[in-house]
Amino acid sequence: MLIVGLGLIGGSVGLRLHEGGVLVRGVSRSQETLDRALERGAIQGGSLDLAREVPQAGLILVAAPTRTSIRLLTEAGALARPGTILTDACSSKQEVVAAMDALSPGVAAVGGHPMAGRELAGIDAADAHLFEGATWVLTQTSRSDDESEAVCETLTMLCGAAPLWVEPREHDDAVAAISHLPLLAAAALVLAAEDSRSELVWRLASSGFRDTTRVAAGEPEMGADLALTNSAALHEAATLFSGHLTTLLDAARTGDKPGIQRLLAQAAARRRGMYGGRG
Amino acid sequence: MLIVGLGLIGGSVGLRLHEGGVLVRGVSRSQETLDRALERGAIQGGSLDLAREVPQAGLILVAAPTRTSIRLLTEAGALARPGTILTDACSSKQEVVAAMDALSPGVAAVGGHPMAGRELAGIDAADAHLFEGATWVLTQTSRSDDESEAVCETLTMLCGAAPLWVEPREHDDAVAAISHLPLLAAAALVLAAEDSRSELVWRLASSGFRDTTRVAAGEPEMGADLALTNSAALHEAATLFSGHLTTLLDAARTGDKPGIQRLLAQAAARRRGMYGGRG
Repeated sequence: MLIVGLGLIGGSVGLRLHEGGVLVRGVSRSQETLDRALERGAIQGGSLDLAREVPQAGLILVAAPTRTSIRLLTEAGALARPGTILTDACSSKQEVVAAMDALSPGVAAVGGHPMAGRELAGIDAADAHLFEGATWVLTQTSRSDDESEAVCETLTMLCGAAPLWVEPREHDDAVAAISHLPLLAAAALVLAAEDSRSELVWRLASSGFRDTTRVAAGEPEMGADLALTNSAALHEAATLFSGHLTTLLDAARTGDKPGIQRLLAQAAARRRGMYGGRG
Repeated sequence: MLIVGLGLIGGSVGLRLHEGGVLVRGVSRSQETLDRALERGAIQGGSLDLAREVPQAGLILVAAPTRTSIRLLTEAGALARPGTILTDACSSKQEVVAAMDALSPGVAAVGGHPMAGRELAGIDAADAHLFEGATWVLTQTSRSDDESEAVCETLTMLCGAAPLWVEPREHDDAVAAISHLPLLAAAALVLAAEDSRSELVWRLASSGFRDTTRVAAGEPEMGADLALTNSAALHEAATLFSGHLTTLLDAARTGDKPGIQRLLAQAAARRRGMYGGRG
């Protein structure tokens, strides 16, 4: 198979598949990344040239920031030989699926989104076990069929993940609430703390601030792309969020202890229900 | 010494001091907690009766939610024999220090705030190593003097923490930005996700959402008390935060990729500067 984009996700898929005995080739925009991916065993060959690699491939995973992925999927779709299966790893799906729908009918395409990540980026952060136990969302497209869907399911399972078929719109609404908005909120918390221009802020920040803002340490380009390609759902989630935050702040200002406590208890119960008391 | 309130903080201090050979008595509002604290070795004696314990104590740590702590400090100050030193563990300091300033001149009082915690609450979550390497804020009051300040410094160091003297106002502004606002924002994120009434949201939530919302699983009463007793600073921090979030969302809506990317890069650089790429 061919992996286009050898960062954290692409590299981790390559490492895992190599452990499973699959032969993987790669395309990167930098020779350094390509060399490093070869050295780590994430790929067994590859080049900087999409046009050279794509026609040899039967299955292609594009693993780049969303907008770049859309461009690469379109380019690869045009270069691919008939019957080639394309999939992606982007964290929003409606725009990607629209691009897949527009591919030549000769190729097959299935949307994908592994629900796993970390703040470190790049091939050096790749980890064969990144997807262990994670959900890997798959979405049908007008270019998918039984065979390409089965192949992509198998790919997720070879990576140790559990495939879950979801509608693109439903996926994007959900990730706006649990991934895209939390990322922007975490970044805004860091920027607001920085506004104080007080060194004390950073000296006093402990494990709570570290965890709440962890996702803000991720790749800026990836963050920008997911916000741009899921903007409508993001705004809906942000409106709900701001409403709750305002209610909490108003209750603090007016001294409404039962009001704050009831909302915090509701959030705590939901949060504990998800992950247990810890974690 | 006497610890009033045998939850996570009080219990952890007791366990640690006991390891160091200090004899600790405790006051709790429940016999069950008192029994459990004795059983775990967090205290070596105690009762439900503040009036019985306080007159015997030379050093008293009050470790309850902020508003309860203020009431208990006032009661204990009235019951204490001359020369007794009182301190607290509340996460906002201006209201607590005002209450300490109003104590009888016969007793000494120093404000305190260990910058450590976890979401599990209660004596069973207490851990002798909770404060290891943490900063423990101390604040002077009009009832503190060289001796009481030295004693409270020693207490923090016996717990494995590093004492840091801070003005109450400066402390409250900083914790509003790095602790109180992040808590309310985390709760609002969980409540907004719940609004979607979609089971998919919880199925797709992965490590990012888990970390971003971890602090929302904490004790609702403690959360309500810190918001209520630090409301002014909280509102200032929230205004800065909302400004940044709105800028990010507007940039997403208008397709301003360089704008989002620049802000996310600024947040990521700050966040990485604090904690390193990981963590």
